[in-house]
Amino acid sequence: MSSYTPEALRECHRKIQPYIHKTPVLTSHLLNELTGASLFFKCENFQRGGSYKMRGATHAALVKKEEGPLPGVVTHSSGNFAQALSLAAQSLNIPAYIVMPKNAPGVKKRAVAQYGGSVFECEPTLEAREAEAERIGKETGAIFIHPSNDPGVMLGQGTAALELLEEVDALDHIVAPVGGGGLLGGTALASAFFGGHCEAIGAEPLAVDDAYRSLEAGRILGNESTDTIADGLKTVLGSYTFPVIQQYVRTILRVTEAEIIQAMHLIWERMKIVVEPSSAVALAAVFKDPERFKGKRVGIVISGGNVDLGNLPFA
Amino acid sequence: MSSYTPEALRECHRKIQPYIHKTPVLTSHLLNELTGASLFFKCENFQRGGSYKMRGATHAALVKKEEGPLPGVVTHSSGNFAQALSLAAQSLNIPAYIVMPKNAPGVKKRAVAQYGGSVFECEPTLEAREAEAERIGKETGAIFIHPSNDPGVMLGQGTAALELLEEVDALDHIVAPVGGGGLLGGTALASAFFGGHCEAIGAEPLAVDDAYRSLEAGRILGNESTDTIADGLKTVLGSYTFPVIQQYVRTILRVTEAEIIQAMHLIWERMKIVVEPSSAVALAAVFKDPERFKGKRVGIVISGGNVDLGNLPFA
Repeated sequence: MSSYTPEALRECHRKIQPYIHKTPVLTSHLLNELTGASLFFKCENFQRGGSYKMRGATHAALVKKEEGPLPGVVTHSSGNFAQALSLAAQSLNIPAYIVMPKNAPGVKKRAVAQYGGSVFECEPTLEAREAEAERIGKETGAIFIHPSNDPGVMLGQGTAALELLEEVDALDHIVAPVGGGGLLGGTALASAFFGGHCEAIGAEPLAVDDAYRSLEAGRILGNESTDTIADGLKTVLGSYTFPVIQQYVRTILRVTEAEIIQAMHLIWERMKIVVEPSSAVALAAVFKDPERFKGKRVGIVISGGNVDLGNLPFA
Repeated sequence: MSSYTPEALRECHRKIQPYIHKTPVLTSHLLNELTGASLFFKCENFQRGGSYKMRGATHAALVKKEEGPLPGVVTHSSGNFAQALSLAAQSLNIPAYIVMPKNAPGVKKRAVAQYGGSVFECEPTLEAREAEAERIGKETGAIFIHPSNDPGVMLGQGTAALELLEEVDALDHIVAPVGGGGLLGGTALASAFFGGHCEAIGAEPLAVDDAYRSLEAGRILGNESTDTIADGLKTVLGSYTFPVIQQYVRTILRVTEAEIIQAMHLIWERMKIVVEPSSAVALAAVFKDPERFKGKRVGIVISGGNVDLGNLPFA
């Protein structure tokens, strides 16, 4: 883990700045009143590609490019990382090959294509997508970049918290949702390096609480099912993200599906911004444990805003 | 119309500043590409109370307060002005009496109550609401403030365009939706006073195109029906707003319901912000007349973001 240093995080931020937006930090009187905390929302839903994934994707691609010739990048993802890597590759003028399960929604495939990525369909199993990614890598020379379990990706994701800490003084906590752990790991590094006493806290759907259980068990555990509306958080920790989270994160708060939807509704209705369910998990976690956050200055990473507007959970 | 001067608009802005947010101006690469214009969205959906109405409500109340004792304010509105006047009155520590038709949605009544206003229900006719407002005024001494047809309100609404013109150089047009004409009138005044060659343009649902027809006819006309999703734009021009619009506005563009919904979907999906249908009317107008706006710098007033999330038009 020697590559995780304050200097490395700053350098990462410097490198990716030409390719990313510096997203705004929003506040809400009403949500402060309701939680008793001072909340600062780092709005990565306004990031290029609609999520923080653009940060890590860009950084990982730049790192690979420094290491040698980069004829292209390949990944398997049906979510925000697919769009982000396509957009990052477009910025770097290299091809992006995105392996997606054949049952992925058409809207997601079109979004990748719109950002210049090439979609390759495969059977909806982990084995099939890994095999297809490997085949593409061999045929095209494209380098594989994992959506979360990659040091360059994790460091890139940490730049959202870095910007937040630069803009807002004296945060006590930064709450970030945890799926594969790239965002939480990067957020934890940024908090440890530049946050003073600021503590990174993970937020996770109870339905896929692998990160919570993994921290308890001291080893990476999976989920028996992935039945959550927070579709960005179904993945599990990896060999790079788990040790960082183990070292720097003490607390992961778990929330129910109803709590996620309620928090998402509050954000849409009161803050007038479009956020995806995974983002709402972080606010739901603050409501879940009010005593912890009362009177505190709390950063919340709004991870993204890519939702299917035709299929919203509000009744 | 001697009270409409550049100095009066500046003074109005100075007075209301402690009570309002300076809302952000957002841009979108994709929407610029799609329209061929450079669009600058003045985001009044982030305004206090969720719409630009807070500006005019606050200004009108302050004007009345300067004119004499102000034991309270009263209006009839089932929309954004009801919330705005309640919030403005709360800021000034006076009561707000809001007359609403008894069939108004419960969510709107609760929003008024939340901002400290008192709801008075009446039959859903114009006569009934005017009678009820008059009765309340007589009993409580509260002064009536019309949601749009009031010089103080109109000037207040113009401060959104004033801020936009201060922030963005060399705008060619500012497009604002038109219902009662307070926003368009104020926008036209701001453009005339501070916009150089900038021209205010109205945007209106075809289904309630009374402003378009009124300008053609040279007198205030009504609508035969009010069947539009843009519920903020069902009202008609008034004795104060019409002359200003007649003097300063050359063009009102009309859009269909499908065009409104399509523009609203684009804004939500691409800009990740929650806007109400009335706001989307302005963007729809730009799509409607691409030749007019191509290559131009165009301000768009996003009027508000108060929508019923349980009843969205996206399929």
